[in-house]
Amino acid sequence: MKLRYGIVGVGGIGGFYGGKLAFHGEDVHFLLHNDYRYVKEHGLRIDSAAGDFILPRVNAYPHQDQMPVCDVVIVGLKTTNNHLLKDILPPLIHQDTVVLLIQNGLGLEADLAKEFPGLSIAGGLAFICSSKVGPGRISHQDYGALNVGSYSCSKPEIVQNIVSDFVQAGVEACLVDLQSARWKKLVWNIPYNGMTVVLNGKTDELTLHPATRSLLRQMMEEVVAASRAIGVRENLGDEVPGQMLEMTEKMAPYAPSMKLDYDARRPLEIEYIYSRPLEEARKAGVEMPCVAALERQLKFLAEKNR
Amino acid sequence: MKLRYGIVGVGGIGGFYGGKLAFHGEDVHFLLHNDYRYVKEHGLRIDSAAGDFILPRVNAYPHQDQMPVCDVVIVGLKTTNNHLLKDILPPLIHQDTVVLLIQNGLGLEADLAKEFPGLSIAGGLAFICSSKVGPGRISHQDYGALNVGSYSCSKPEIVQNIVSDFVQAGVEACLVDLQSARWKKLVWNIPYNGMTVVLNGKTDELTLHPATRSLLRQMMEEVVAASRAIGVRENLGDEVPGQMLEMTEKMAPYAPSMKLDYDARRPLEIEYIYSRPLEEARKAGVEMPCVAALERQLKFLAEKNR
Repeated sequence: MKLRYGIVGVGGIGGFYGGKLAFHGEDVHFLLHNDYRYVKEHGLRIDSAAGDFILPRVNAYPHQDQMPVCDVVIVGLKTTNNHLLKDILPPLIHQDTVVLLIQNGLGLEADLAKEFPGLSIAGGLAFICSSKVGPGRISHQDYGALNVGSYSCSKPEIVQNIVSDFVQAGVEACLVDLQSARWKKLVWNIPYNGMTVVLNGKTDELTLHPATRSLLRQMMEEVVAASRAIGVRENLGDEVPGQMLEMTEKMAPYAPSMKLDYDARRPLEIEYIYSRPLEEARKAGVEMPCVAALERQLKFLAEKNR
Repeated sequence: MKLRYGIVGVGGIGGFYGGKLAFHGEDVHFLLHNDYRYVKEHGLRIDSAAGDFILPRVNAYPHQDQMPVCDVVIVGLKTTNNHLLKDILPPLIHQDTVVLLIQNGLGLEADLAKEFPGLSIAGGLAFICSSKVGPGRISHQDYGALNVGSYSCSKPEIVQNIVSDFVQAGVEACLVDLQSARWKKLVWNIPYNGMTVVLNGKTDELTLHPATRSLLRQMMEEVVAASRAIGVRENLGDEVPGQMLEMTEKMAPYAPSMKLDYDARRPLEIEYIYSRPLEEARKAGVEMPCVAALERQLKFLAEKNR
């Protein structure tokens, strides 16, 4: 089945994955705000470690009301902008449209489902270093895998179709159990996003210094323990924290998205990366003390940074 | 009994309290390093909220070997310099000399006792805002109370004599149970010293923001719980954290000593303010998870700051 894609949030995530689909010939429609005129005229340019590519002409729209109804809406917004979806989505969706949230954190799908009861929602986890560096210009530095899972899709075959489209467009896409995948990604995101902000450090130095390595590990262990108490389908093993530390040690020094947001004085995604996991863990009777401490430090810094 | 005082570490603490004793006519001898020539020539000047005073001539020495043996040696060094005491103290002490450590943290007296078995050691807690602002020049901004307690004094009456000398010199000095006093002061020092460094904040904003107030309180509760598990003589009640938060709210915005050290790129007193209390708590079977997280953040920052 040929799917029509809408892209909401054309930054490092939406620009890259939407661009890959469009470059492969899929029917892709981009919602733009500030960059609309530039992209309408010049298209999209993706400087990619895996090979640069240019889309000289893209279907670009300045407002959702001008867009066609889509079969899949890919949301690549910062979660701090998810309140906008209430107004953006209605003109884009039909009965079976799948809204795919390629975002970090926990509770995103639940919040959207509250706003749109009965909506087919899927979640995506991007393992990628990619950011917007100018109007219509995305810089993709490394990686690119995408894990996709259904949250409330009435027709699960559409999710398979989406994954298949990504794979054919050259993305390492996988169909996964969403809850497990979200928790597994939190094991990395929770310690590294916040610690790079609070200590103004890069992933490598934090991973190598014995004091912060021990603290990163402890936070990872807290997240693993919480995921088990909650009973995510795919159990996270005791080896996960050690593996993540070793993986990060081998990565190039890296500024996670929250660090980039902080340095650019943008709002921080504290709610979905920290507060909601803490809430879910507490509901399951588990405290994550070091994570909770980091959350409160971030709340202070985020407010001071505005 | 007329006591002869030696002052080691003539900064905000040693300069102020030694200066008060000297100004009142006690027999006080100051060990100086960089400031020796200046102080020998110009004396000490204390700009004090409680009334400025000048000591035009003081007994100043460039090296411990030139000093007389003293009945009391007041140590006002940063604890990061306590390794120097091994060389400084021997020429200054006789059989019954009391070495009074006016320093923050835990385990200072135990470490000194290991180095000097049988030494009469006392500890002091200064509740003061005071710092050295230039050669021979101390700025005393506020407060000034001093709690003194014996750790291993062969003649406890000397400690009473010291407290009495301070009181007569105009210092609000008290004789206290040292272990209890050290833990009680840690309830404030542990959260505020580290949090002002890590979050680059002042005491007032950290106390007023709900997120950091909650974290400060949690650390205070961890310290109170640890002090109880250890069984300090004077039980710290559940009301202590609330009282300390309210007290700090009323204080003028304040940079604790560790924040001043950090900003001036001096070593941080992590060992005695964090690591030793954590160690003592663990020995008593108690974890302080938020305090332990802060300790590790500080170790990273301290090393990066050098």
